[in-house]
Amino acid sequence: MRIAQVAPLAESVPPKLYGGTERIVSWLTEELVEQGHDVTLFASGDSQTSAELVRAVPRGLRLGGVRDHTASLLVMLEEVRRQASSFDVIHFHVDLLQFPAFRHSSAHCLTTLHGRLDLPDFHPVYRAFPEMPLVSISRNQRLPLPEANWLANIQHGLPQGPAPSDVHKRDYLAFLGRIAPEKRPDRAIEIAKRAGIPLKIAAKVDPADQDYFDHVIRPQLDHPLIEFIGEIGDHEKRDFLGNAIALLFPIDWPEPFGLVMIEAMREGTPTIAWRRGSVPEVMDEGVTGFIVESIEDAVVAVRMALDLDRRQVRQRFEERFTATRMASNYVAEYEGLLERSAMIVPQWREADAPPPPLDLLVAAKNVSGDGLNVSPFHRPI
Amino acid sequence: MRIAQVAPLAESVPPKLYGGTERIVSWLTEELVEQGHDVTLFASGDSQTSAELVRAVPRGLRLGGVRDHTASLLVMLEEVRRQASSFDVIHFHVDLLQFPAFRHSSAHCLTTLHGRLDLPDFHPVYRAFPEMPLVSISRNQRLPLPEANWLANIQHGLPQGPAPSDVHKRDYLAFLGRIAPEKRPDRAIEIAKRAGIPLKIAAKVDPADQDYFDHVIRPQLDHPLIEFIGEIGDHEKRDFLGNAIALLFPIDWPEPFGLVMIEAMREGTPTIAWRRGSVPEVMDEGVTGFIVESIEDAVVAVRMALDLDRRQVRQRFEERFTATRMASNYVAEYEGLLERSAMIVPQWREADAPPPPLDLLVAAKNVSGDGLNVSPFHRPI
Repeated sequence: MRIAQVAPLAESVPPKLYGGTERIVSWLTEELVEQGHDVTLFASGDSQTSAELVRAVPRGLRLGGVRDHTASLLVMLEEVRRQASSFDVIHFHVDLLQFPAFRHSSAHCLTTLHGRLDLPDFHPVYRAFPEMPLVSISRNQRLPLPEANWLANIQHGLPQGPAPSDVHKRDYLAFLGRIAPEKRPDRAIEIAKRAGIPLKIAAKVDPADQDYFDHVIRPQLDHPLIEFIGEIGDHEKRDFLGNAIALLFPIDWPEPFGLVMIEAMREGTPTIAWRRGSVPEVMDEGVTGFIVESIEDAVVAVRMALDLDRRQVRQRFEERFTATRMASNYVAEYEGLLERSAMIVPQWREADAPPPPLDLLVAAKNVSGDGLNVSPFHRPI
Repeated sequence: MRIAQVAPLAESVPPKLYGGTERIVSWLTEELVEQGHDVTLFASGDSQTSAELVRAVPRGLRLGGVRDHTASLLVMLEEVRRQASSFDVIHFHVDLLQFPAFRHSSAHCLTTLHGRLDLPDFHPVYRAFPEMPLVSISRNQRLPLPEANWLANIQHGLPQGPAPSDVHKRDYLAFLGRIAPEKRPDRAIEIAKRAGIPLKIAAKVDPADQDYFDHVIRPQLDHPLIEFIGEIGDHEKRDFLGNAIALLFPIDWPEPFGLVMIEAMREGTPTIAWRRGSVPEVMDEGVTGFIVESIEDAVVAVRMALDLDRRQVRQRFEERFTATRMASNYVAEYEGLLERSAMIVPQWREADAPPPPLDLLVAAKNVSGDGLNVSPFHRPI
C-alpha cells in the first residue's frame, strides 16, 4: 500500500528530545516500512526514517526557533496535495490545517488527533468538515466531541525493544515529561517527600511554563530527596524509567493518551497515576500500577508498587502496547477506507454534489463584453 | 463591483475596544458601500456594517475567550470559497490561511498584510504561493520580503469626521495602544517626567504582556504626573487625543503602520515618534510632529510641539489619510486585477499548467479490478 505519513514540524521524526506526536509518527512509519508498505514521510529535514522522506523544512521548528508553525505547515500540506495522487492513503498527524484542502479526497485520508479536545477553540472545524475521518487515541479524548466523524480508536504503541534486565538497583521514583501545572510535578514532589524516597525529575520547561517553573517548582527543588535533571533524550529514557521503583503520573488534566505510562510499562516499571483522561484505559489496575485520587493513596501505592511483578508489567506491555499492534490497527483502517472508496458509485446526484471547486477564472473566461458582473453560478442567499 | 471583505475574527468589525485591523476593515467596507459597491463582509456576528454581513462566528473571539483562532478562520474561509463565484474580488485581511484554498483564483484575490514581516516564521508561505497578490501598508513593512508578490502599497485611512474644535484646554501628553515592551510605555513615562507634563496612558494589557505590566510599568504608575486609565473605546479616543498636547509614540519595533499617529493627526494633535518602522512614511517632520531617537530629543520636541499649527496637522490628515483616499486606492487595485484577469488567455500550456486539483476519488473510480495501486498521475520524483 502507498501510504503518506504527514508529521507535525515542531520536532524532527523522531524528535531529538521531547515530542510525543513525532515519536508516534516515527514508530508507526518504521513499522509500516517493516511490514512492506511503500511509505512517504512528510516531516522536517533533520528526520531519520526508512521511508522516503519529503523534507518540508530544514529542521524541527521548535529547536529551530520558529514559534508560529502555520506557514511551514501550509507549505508542507501544499506539497502533500501536489503529490496526493501518488498515495492510496494519506495519514495526517497535524490537527486541522489540512481539512479545507483535502475535504474532497476525504475517502483516502485520515487524521489522528493527538491533542486534547476539551477546549472549544477547535470544535468549529470538526463540525464544518464532517466528512474527514478521525482517529482518537483514547475513548476519553472523544468525550467533548462525541458526534465527530470517528473512524476508530487506536491506542499508541512503542517498539518492543529488549526485555528489561533484572539486575537494576531501584531506589528512586521517576517523573518524566514537561514541567507544567497540569502535569502536577508539585504532587510528585509531595509524594516523594511523604514516602521518604528520592524523586528524579527529567523534564523540559517550555517558555510558556517558565514562570510556573521559577515560582512554583524551583523553590521545591532544594530538598535532599529531590533531583532535577532537565530534558533527556529517548536513549536515556529506558534506563531512567527502568531503574525506577515506579513512575509518578499525577496529572490534573484530561491527558488524551499519556505515552510515558507505556514507556514505563515497557521497562517493567509500574505507574502510579491520577484518575484523569485516558489513565483508566491505559492502566491495568493492580497489574501495571495503581490509579489514585489523593496524595495519601499515592504514598500507599508507592509501597504496593514494590510488590508488583515487573515481568507481568512487561508482559502486559507486549500484549497491548507495541508499535506492531498499533501499525496493524492503522493498516486495518487504511484497508477499510480503500474498500469503501472503491465502492463509491461514480455518479453524483445534483443535490448531493459537493460545491464546485473554486475557479473564479471560469467566471472571467466565459464572459463577453466587459462581463465582469457575470458569474456562471447563482449567488446563494 | 461585487467585493468580499474577509476580516480577522479576533474582534468584531468595528471592534468594541482595541483592534487595528478590524477597524481598517470597517472603515474600508463602509466607504466602499458609500461609493456604491456591492460589498459582503465576512466577520464575527457582533459586527456592525452597511454591507451584507456573513457571520462567521457568534462574536469576536478575543472577548469570547477563544485563544486559537485557526479553526474558526478555516470554517469562515470555507464559506468564502463556497460563495466565491458571487464576487468579482475577494479582499483578505487574515494573513495566510487562505493561500492554499484560493491560489487558483489568485487573479481575483488580494491580501493586505497588516502585521510585521520581520519574523522568519511566515516567510515560507509567501515563497510557496508566489501568485497571491499582496498589499503592504508601508514600504518599511516590505523590507524583510522584497521579492514577494507586492501589488501595491496602500497606507491606512480614517473616516474624516468633524474638524477638531479649538477650545480644548491641552495640558497633558497621551499614550494610546497596548502595554507591551515594543511600544515602550516606559519611554513615554520618562519623557513626561523629564518634561514635567502629565501623561495619560490609555492602553490594554494582553495576557502575554501582563508580566511586563506588573513588573516594569505598574511600579512607575505611582507618580503624580502619570495616570493609567486602561483600555478605551473608539468613541472616547477623539477627546483623549484631541485634548492632548501631543501623542507620544516611542516605539522600539518595526511598526508596520501605526494607526494611532493618524488618529492623533485627525484631531490636529501632533505626534512625537521614534524613527522606527513606518514612522518616517507617515509623519511629516515639523508639520504633523517630530521624529526623534532619544529621550532628550523627545523632551525638546514636546516643547516644540506646542508651537505647531494644529490646523495644518489636521489639513495634512485630510490630504493623506482619509478612508476615502484609502478606499479609492483599493478600488483602483481591484479594477486592475479584473482588467488583467479578463485578459487571461484561456489556454494553458501543459508545462505551465497548475497542478491538477486534488481529486483522489478519480483515481479510485477509474480503476478496474482491485485497482488500488493504479493512479492516473505519475508520481513526481
